Amino acid sequence: MYKIDLNCDLGESFGRYTLGLDGEVIPLITSANIACGYHASDPVIMEKTVKLAKDNGVHIGAHTGFPDLMGFGRRNMVLTMQEARTYTIYQIGALKAFCDASGTKLSHIKPHGAFYNMAAKDYDLAHAICEGVHQCCNELIFLGLSGSIMEKAALDTGLIFKSEVFADRAYEEDGSLVARSKPGAMIEDEAAIPRVIRMITEGKVKAITGRDIDIKADSVCVHGDGPKTLEFIKLLREACNTSDIKIEVMS
Amino acid sequence: MYKIDLNCDLGESFGRYTLGLDGEVIPLITSANIACGYHASDPVIMEKTVKLAKDNGVHIGAHTGFPDLMGFGRRNMVLTMQEARTYTIYQIGALKAFCDASGTKLSHIKPHGAFYNMAAKDYDLAHAICEGVHQCCNELIFLGLSGSIMEKAALDTGLIFKSEVFADRAYEEDGSLVARSKPGAMIEDEAAIPRVIRMITEGKVKAITGRDIDIKADSVCVHGDGPKTLEFIKLLREACNTSDIKIEVMS
Amino acid sequence: MYKIDLNCDLGESFGRYTLGLDGEVIPLITSANIACGYHASDPVIMEKTVKLAKDNGVHIGAHTGFPDLMGFGRRNMVLTMQEARTYTIYQIGALKAFCDASGTKLSHIKPHGAFYNMAAKDYDLAHAICEGVHQCCNELIFLGLSGSIMEKAALDTGLIFKSEVFADRAYEEDGSLVARSKPGAMIEDEAAIPRVIRMITEGKVKAITGRDIDIKADSVCVHGDGPKTLEFIKLLREACNTSDIKIEVMS
Amino acid sequence: MYKIDLNCDLGESFGRYTLGLDGEVIPLITSANIACGYHASDPVIMEKTVKLAKDNGVHIGAHTGFPDLMGFGRRNMVLTMQEARTYTIYQIGALKAFCDASGTKLSHIKPHGAFYNMAAKDYDLAHAICEGVHQCCNELIFLGLSGSIMEKAALDTGLIFKSEVFADRAYEEDGSLVARSKPGAMIEDEAAIPRVIRMITEGKVKAITGRDIDIKADSVCVHGDGPKTLEFIKLLREACNTSDIKIEVMS
Repeated sequence: MYKIDLNCDLGESFGRYTLGLDGEVIPLITSANIACGYHASDPVIMEKTVKLAKDNGVHIGAHTGFPDLMGFGRRNMVLTMQEARTYTIYQIGALKAFCDASGTKLSHIKPHGAFYNMAAKDYDLAHAICEGVHQCCNELIFLGLSGSIMEKAALDTGLIFKSEVFADRAYEEDGSLVARSKPGAMIEDEAAIPRVIRMITEGKVKAITGRDIDIKADSVCVHGDGPKTLEFIKLLREACNTSDIKIEVMS
Repeated sequence: MYKIDLNCDLGESFGRYTLGLDGEVIPLITSANIACGYHASDPVIMEKTVKLAKDNGVHIGAHTGFPDLMGFGRRNMVLTMQEARTYTIYQIGALKAFCDASGTKLSHIKPHGAFYNMAAKDYDLAHAICEGVHQCCNELIFLGLSGSIMEKAALDTGLIFKSEVFADRAYEEDGSLVARSKPGAMIEDEAAIPRVIRMITEGKVKAITGRDIDIKADSVCVHGDGPKTLEFIKLLREACNTSDIKIEVMS
Repeated sequence: MYKIDLNCDLGESFGRYTLGLDGEVIPLITSANIACGYHASDPVIMEKTVKLAKDNGVHIGAHTGFPDLMGFGRRNMVLTMQEARTYTIYQIGALKAFCDASGTKLSHIKPHGAFYNMAAKDYDLAHAICEGVHQCCNELIFLGLSGSIMEKAALDTGLIFKSEVFADRAYEEDGSLVARSKPGAMIEDEAAIPRVIRMITEGKVKAITGRDIDIKADSVCVHGDGPKTLEFIKLLREACNTSDIKIEVMS
Repeated sequence: MYKIDLNCDLGESFGRYTLGLDGEVIPLITSANIACGYHASDPVIMEKTVKLAKDNGVHIGAHTGFPDLMGFGRRNMVLTMQEARTYTIYQIGALKAFCDASGTKLSHIKPHGAFYNMAAKDYDLAHAICEGVHQCCNELIFLGLSGSIMEKAALDTGLIFKSEVFADRAYEEDGSLVARSKPGAMIEDEAAIPRVIRMITEGKVKAITGRDIDIKADSVCVHGDGPKTLEFIKLLREACNTSDIKIEVMS
């Protein structure tokens, strides 16, 4: 019997702007990464999304991003380590207050977008983020890219690390994601499901070079912003079911 | 033996911009209201200010403002009650995380600028703020304008309310502050000190009309952004000393 | 032969967030009010929307809003007259640069949301906005609420004023819009079209009290954010056609 | 007879925050680079600074920065070429409107902080900025790092390029600035003045390696945020005077 967590980025609306099918995705996942007002979201959205997660028994994580609403946190920004650490503390604290207000708890943290991608390749940056988590909320699980330097940073700081895999992205031989700009970077839906099942059950994935590499899968990242996505998650859930994989929150 | 708390707004710098004599004011006060990134401050400043307060044994409060950095939170904004409540939760949470990270605690909340002034005259708004406090951090003291509708809102919500007085501002007969635009709104430094001493020891102040009114003084608001201010606080401390008033944090 | 302009608020997307059916609405209107980055939009969206308007032969106006992205410029904010004036100059200038870059021209200005509603009732505020327009771009048409104090402010400043009417909103006897919170504030689509035709051809509309009032209609505001809206504009265009009303840009 | 322009970054205050000795520096310089609301400044400050420059007969340039107020535009951000181009157009337009409103003209553009430093080493980025200038305001002089790739980008786009030198910074042999983090990066005031005079009169400067390199000096960047700075500018002006160098705006 295997097990896997399904995580999705939620609560990315902002003011008058709506993004994502939060209400439809939430019953299908086990962990929600909720934006904290830096790259997306605002306090009204945060409260609403925390309640939605709580009502659906989904674990809540802080999705901490760059202070770049105009770029949705997807643009590389060069922060100092002090900034990376304190921006993490600020955002965790803000979301945790909504968890407290709703009588639920904050379970994990996952950096967002460019913050995630930069930290996956930069030990010092990853460590600064982990220091922030450690200082304000030591019990949070750190959810990061499987096989990346984030894992070492989290363990060095004394945090629990869980490995995230992507169903729709190709991997390089070193376990990093193939840049979206390269051909073959995205995996089609039909190919994606058996790929993920193999990651979970065998701990292997075929890299873009054709060679098998090792990969650890504690949680699969699924998307929440397209009707095709809902279909994909349902198919993935069925495939897990028939492969003796239990869909269960990380712990 | 009387007692009084001295509170000051600190941590109002932002990025490259420095404001206030935080390091010089902090040894002279007992409570610091720290900005939370909405009307002023950023995470780097917040961490630094929390540490400064902790190192000086000064109690920490969340100084929650409007999301209006350009206007420094001093412009009236019409929020919904949901916005007022959730903006309060967000800012308290963010600051509390820095208190947790520094191993100290958050003691009180005081709305800032136009948020404070509007709430002092609008029960629903004051109540929405108090609801936010109650939901995420019920143990916080609510520091608000002495004699204002904020007190009722705080008590109705089950919060502890403490009454703030201003040394340098004239009062109307109904206990509200005389608008800054009116003549006589500001009190000169020499007159201010005996005025405050009387508020503390007699519970009275002469309104702008010349009539004495009742006033409750748990905490005096002092300013932190001018060298004259430091002198004023020192004189106020001496006057308290000679009037048998103990300077002590609210509790 | 009568004539009428059809204006619509466009370019209200922001970064990752998309709002409005700009591409579908634009062939159906004659004037586009384009957001300028304060209440909505960003430079990439502004450039794209200016090009879209130019390609469709639609006149371009600056839709100047409050600096409140989180509230979409819909929350009342109390600005100084200097702020109202300079915020207007800033936003007009930014949009005009995109017009210059696209080889087209800026034709009008219309304040947005709460800025519009507050200025419609506050001569000083309306005048400050008009002063800003006058100082940087004197030739722009000022598009404002029909019968409101904006008209006097514009004329006093030496600007050309054009009167905007709303198809879907009820009017008070004094010509102001019935607050959205009141029952009967919104007009159903079927009733809206003959109402507008009457405003154009007779200069009259039935107020919410049942009494006819005078109204001047140079331009009708239509919405751009719902599929029903496209249908409504098409019906309105047909009704104009059969009523001998030419749909033509303001001048 | 030689000639040189003295430029300074001004108008970097924001809302309640004051930065720089604008009023004292302005009589000592010939070109003012004025912040445009992205990395610093707001419309009230922009209007005030444009008037100050006009009243002192100082030429005005748009100091265009990253949309990063919290980082004062000093943090590297990876923009798309479309973003770099349109952010430039937006900021130029906004500032130009204040020039129009004040009856003066916009003369040049100089990217700010990290935007400048990144563009000095990245032709595509520099070219995107120049394209923006070319599209909306073709007559502006582009003021950039002497000897950098910015010059080629400006000339390729058809803009006039002027070469900026720094009195207080060491140069690498390739003409780039020595990173501030390296020892010897900053030049002391006493050494700085003969260094600048030599750049202007001989077109040479000693690189950090000790070797002389060629350098073109159309304009010297002086600072505006410290009392020592005012003294330095006065000494530089005297040294120019005794070296037969006329201080004159770029053209």
